[in-house]
Amino acid sequence: MPHLTTPEAPAALSASLQTGAQLHALLERLFPICRSITGDGVRQTLAVVQEYLPDLQVHEVPSGTPVLDWTVPAEWNIRDAWVKNAAGERVIDFQQHSLHVLGYSTPVRGWFSRQELEQHLFSLPEQPTLIPYRTSYYQPGWGFCLSHEARLALSDEYYEVCIDSTLDEHGSLTYGELVLPATVAREEAAGEVLLSCHCCHPSLANDNLSGLVVAVALAGYLARQPRRYAYRFVFGPGTIGSITWLARNPEAVARIRHGLVLTLLGGPGDFTYKQSRRGTAATDQAVALALRDRAAAHHIRPWLPYGYDERQYCSPGFNLPVGCLSRTPFGEFAEYHTSADNPSFVRPGQLQQALELVQQICRVFEHNRTYRNLRPYGEPQLGRRGLYKGVGGGSEGQQWQMALLWVLSLSDGEHSLPAVAEQSGLPFELLHRAAQSLAATDLLEPV
Amino acid sequence: MPHLTTPEAPAALSASLQTGAQLHALLERLFPICRSITGDGVRQTLAVVQEYLPDLQVHEVPSGTPVLDWTVPAEWNIRDAWVKNAAGERVIDFQQHSLHVLGYSTPVRGWFSRQELEQHLFSLPEQPTLIPYRTSYYQPGWGFCLSHEARLALSDEYYEVCIDSTLDEHGSLTYGELVLPATVAREEAAGEVLLSCHCCHPSLANDNLSGLVVAVALAGYLARQPRRYAYRFVFGPGTIGSITWLARNPEAVARIRHGLVLTLLGGPGDFTYKQSRRGTAATDQAVALALRDRAAAHHIRPWLPYGYDERQYCSPGFNLPVGCLSRTPFGEFAEYHTSADNPSFVRPGQLQQALELVQQICRVFEHNRTYRNLRPYGEPQLGRRGLYKGVGGGSEGQQWQMALLWVLSLSDGEHSLPAVAEQSGLPFELLHRAAQSLAATDLLEPV
Amino acid sequence: MPHLTTPEAPAALSASLQTGAQLHALLERLFPICRSITGDGVRQTLAVVQEYLPDLQVHEVPSGTPVLDWTVPAEWNIRDAWVKNAAGERVIDFQQHSLHVLGYSTPVRGWFSRQELEQHLFSLPEQPTLIPYRTSYYQPGWGFCLSHEARLALSDEYYEVCIDSTLDEHGSLTYGELVLPATVAREEAAGEVLLSCHCCHPSLANDNLSGLVVAVALAGYLARQPRRYAYRFVFGPGTIGSITWLARNPEAVARIRHGLVLTLLGGPGDFTYKQSRRGTAATDQAVALALRDRAAAHHIRPWLPYGYDERQYCSPGFNLPVGCLSRTPFGEFAEYHTSADNPSFVRPGQLQQALELVQQICRVFEHNRTYRNLRPYGEPQLGRRGLYKGVGGGSEGQQWQMALLWVLSLSDGEHSLPAVAEQSGLPFELLHRAAQSLAATDLLEPV
Repeated sequence: MPHLTTPEAPAALSASLQTGAQLHALLERLFPICRSITGDGVRQTLAVVQEYLPDLQVHEVPSGTPVLDWTVPAEWNIRDAWVKNAAGERVIDFQQHSLHVLGYSTPVRGWFSRQELEQHLFSLPEQPTLIPYRTSYYQPGWGFCLSHEARLALSDEYYEVCIDSTLDEHGSLTYGELVLPATVAREEAAGEVLLSCHCCHPSLANDNLSGLVVAVALAGYLARQPRRYAYRFVFGPGTIGSITWLARNPEAVARIRHGLVLTLLGGPGDFTYKQSRRGTAATDQAVALALRDRAAAHHIRPWLPYGYDERQYCSPGFNLPVGCLSRTPFGEFAEYHTSADNPSFVRPGQLQQALELVQQICRVFEHNRTYRNLRPYGEPQLGRRGLYKGVGGGSEGQQWQMALLWVLSLSDGEHSLPAVAEQSGLPFELLHRAAQSLAATDLLEPV
Repeated sequence: MPHLTTPEAPAALSASLQTGAQLHALLERLFPICRSITGDGVRQTLAVVQEYLPDLQVHEVPSGTPVLDWTVPAEWNIRDAWVKNAAGERVIDFQQHSLHVLGYSTPVRGWFSRQELEQHLFSLPEQPTLIPYRTSYYQPGWGFCLSHEARLALSDEYYEVCIDSTLDEHGSLTYGELVLPATVAREEAAGEVLLSCHCCHPSLANDNLSGLVVAVALAGYLARQPRRYAYRFVFGPGTIGSITWLARNPEAVARIRHGLVLTLLGGPGDFTYKQSRRGTAATDQAVALALRDRAAAHHIRPWLPYGYDERQYCSPGFNLPVGCLSRTPFGEFAEYHTSADNPSFVRPGQLQQALELVQQICRVFEHNRTYRNLRPYGEPQLGRRGLYKGVGGGSEGQQWQMALLWVLSLSDGEHSLPAVAEQSGLPFELLHRAAQSLAATDLLEPV
Repeated sequence: MPHLTTPEAPAALSASLQTGAQLHALLERLFPICRSITGDGVRQTLAVVQEYLPDLQVHEVPSGTPVLDWTVPAEWNIRDAWVKNAAGERVIDFQQHSLHVLGYSTPVRGWFSRQELEQHLFSLPEQPTLIPYRTSYYQPGWGFCLSHEARLALSDEYYEVCIDSTLDEHGSLTYGELVLPATVAREEAAGEVLLSCHCCHPSLANDNLSGLVVAVALAGYLARQPRRYAYRFVFGPGTIGSITWLARNPEAVARIRHGLVLTLLGGPGDFTYKQSRRGTAATDQAVALALRDRAAAHHIRPWLPYGYDERQYCSPGFNLPVGCLSRTPFGEFAEYHTSADNPSFVRPGQLQQALELVQQICRVFEHNRTYRNLRPYGEPQLGRRGLYKGVGGGSEGQQWQMALLWVLSLSDGEHSLPAVAEQSGLPFELLHRAAQSLAATDLLEPV
């Protein structure tokens, strides 16, 4: 049974999680587990994450706990589920694929006519070979998902049905949290960056394991970097997980300066960034710059109150500067929420690009400073400071010299370095190095 | 003589004025009357309007009254006008068409050589079969308008000329006014909406009778609706009429929150909205939304200090939020200000579309509220309030659910419902219904 | 030797400098002089300018003077320079073209192997017939510039080299300055307009003599006009000249309201305006309007911290409203900084267009007023003031009447006349005349 497989210990810790192949191997390991918004599948998933991030804290919140406008639901677990034909053969079998059962199905056991059974089946007539992913969290019921071909092949008059699940009112909701504190002195610390991904989807690879493995690898990378910001990673079930985290962490919420929901990062398709509700937050600017500098083709979309956990983080009471980074968004690729979203749909190279992009986004967060030119009257003579080429008269300023000039020109205490990058069109990292060089010759200081 | 025809009583009151055919019938009835900026033609026109809108008040303002920078002119009336050839035949005859006489012609009687007469004739060489419409309100003189073909046929050496008109310094200027008060309690009332159309053009159908009949029908419609706003209809001569009304109503002017000049609504061509001088008034936003939601093709033009009475309402001292709604604007269709602008040029279907559009615009005025989400921290759980579908996992949010989410997301007390409509791209009426549903479940309240 | 040629006295004064041919003749006269950032070439050039502008003041600033972050360099002069082959023939000869010597070359005399000499040669392999222009102001060294063809023809083993130059630590930097004071009473004066062009390039025609002759002609024109602004012309070496002027004139700097760097105005190609660092300064608006009204095709580019002396004027400490007007910008035409940038590359007609454009820009500066409509309630009756045509009803407003209406509509004390020109699309000069007519009938007054 997939979700009872004991996870294998990884060969190494998070430092080993750097290449696309390494990320993909972790994704394949996590794929069989039957996750839902509560239950052992989440716990097993977080236990694997803890192998890479030993400081990950796992929180359990009792069912029935009020969280904002919601209530933590009963905990759902499932041991087995099947439909047998008259001959006693399993014609739908949860052991074969965790998508076969409607998420949060109530327990059931008995014989049903085919007509009765049909009321509980979900299939995709237009994608007849794929199993759909369906759930019914907040409306009690039971059901099976299967390929349309398999559904059409059901010809017996009666079927035996079993869903061996439990809904425990005394259970709990599980989520994981990791904080990497800032490494600078308290007075130089810049607040928190929230990185959030959902871990409630059963055997689906791009949605959401791709976001999860990139987040784990990013945490490993950031743990080895100096940090002006603290970084807070939340791994929880969609919607109810972020609502629960928000309800329990008002003080952390107040410290958030940037945030990203990571999802759908492993499939084909260009990167897509969905802006925060604010639309003009520094987060939105930073992601746009990282995409401009790193991703040939990409898309930036305005806020939409539908999607992933940014819906909660950006609800008007919180209105946090949290956007959502993905490749092709949900619902816009044929494999979405079907059995075709499996590990072979996710490419190692896509995961690696995604990891490099989120690293770059964090560098923009870290290096987003506003500077003041200390020799603002006329241009300072760069030549005697070793910052300028000696023989003039050529017709092309080189990019490095342009970076120096742009930083000097706009460092009036009002233009942040990302603003300089936007206005100049020059790469953010080049401008950051130029600012470092100018600061080293006492021409510039951070505001 | 057209303007002496006794108007027939209509079969019913304003409630009967709902279909395009009914509007067109009223337009046909008013068409023969020889209107000008003063005189009995205006009175006869307003008398017909009063049959539909019994509460219409007719104001008479004495000639010579100073109004803003202007003076109410002498009252002009005309009994007859003709040019007879040597054989005594009427070759130009006011009885045949009220456009034949230059508006505000001074009286004249006598024989003129053809050469002398030519100085007083107006025709259109490039549209040789049409009679042009010309006036000379503020520069005394007399003249006749005729088709260019008829002009070329004038071959006698002498003609007898008669214009039996009067210019009475002791007359008055006439305009009509109807106020539909708000139906809500005084503390909830939202100010006034001004709806203005000119009634000074003689036998022209699209300009301006189309605007007049749509205004009459709109008044009938609004009289049957609950109203947060008071609606003030002004039917007066162009320029001097709106100037006179503005001069006499400083208190009403101060209450105006929205306004529209209605004209040229019956011809072919897409709707065109000319923005108020402010350009970003709530009126401009409301009309743009109504056009977006109702009219497949339409045009929005920026402010221009030339046109209809919006010139006066938007003069910089008043700067009222008044735009101008028409179809193809003045001067941009071949029939403009000619005898071809007759009742057959105006289509019943076009009038009906126009009525439905202005009704929708008024609905946007009425439903333009700014709301506050009362559960702004995270999304409220719509499911337990019966506002959400139960089985998740599908890839498409439906429009109704998106409307609920958009209203919740942007109801922070700073986004009006029209702003939500602009940002979401969803129909205004749908968002209004979503806001009503959310308010009914205590999730929302107006600010 | 070119730079020792005694300039011929011109036939007339600046008033004679109005046609393109006259401007081109002055350019041809100045062309042979070997200018650099200091030295007699600059003095000779300014002496010629003084013939046209007798009030031009010539300033000498001692070498070693600290100016902002820089130091005035040693004065460079050159009498002769050549490379002789074994046969004693001058194979590179400064007497033939002042571009042959690397600007600011240190003196040298002796025999060098061809290999040694090659280290000091500059040529353009991709433009093999042209001599490049190169300098080495702030890094001591010597060198020759020559066509690549001539360079390839060097086949002797040894060459005799002579650069008969001096670098005088007790010399000075020379620049010229002319102030045309405002002609209005002190309380109506509007500040200063800075017009700057560099005069440090040796025998190059478009860069920079075209800018210089247009500036001289503009000064002559403005001297004959009434002026709300004072106009300050600065003729100095690039970079160090503007830095020196800025360092020495803090009070004048504080009075600058507009400014233009004039350069590259004589070649082919559309006009190009590079905006000031502010981007939205009244200067930027005025130039854009003059280009819109005068130049069919033109280009407006945003601020870039590379280019001409606007780099200094717009450095963040000063941040003056100074843009740069040129035709095809530096580095974007093949003749740039080569011997092909000679008087035949500059067309008289292009110079004349440029002069007319800068005159128009100055008219926009002068006529940039904000007015208040004194009859703002409704439109004033233009007819009785002789400002309107008498017979209405035509379908086209004429441009003059539209100008009157636009000025009245937007003269609320908040829209400048350039803003009216932008919003209306009407020519600025027409609006200026309309404003004058309205002011003459007491309908308008400047704020």
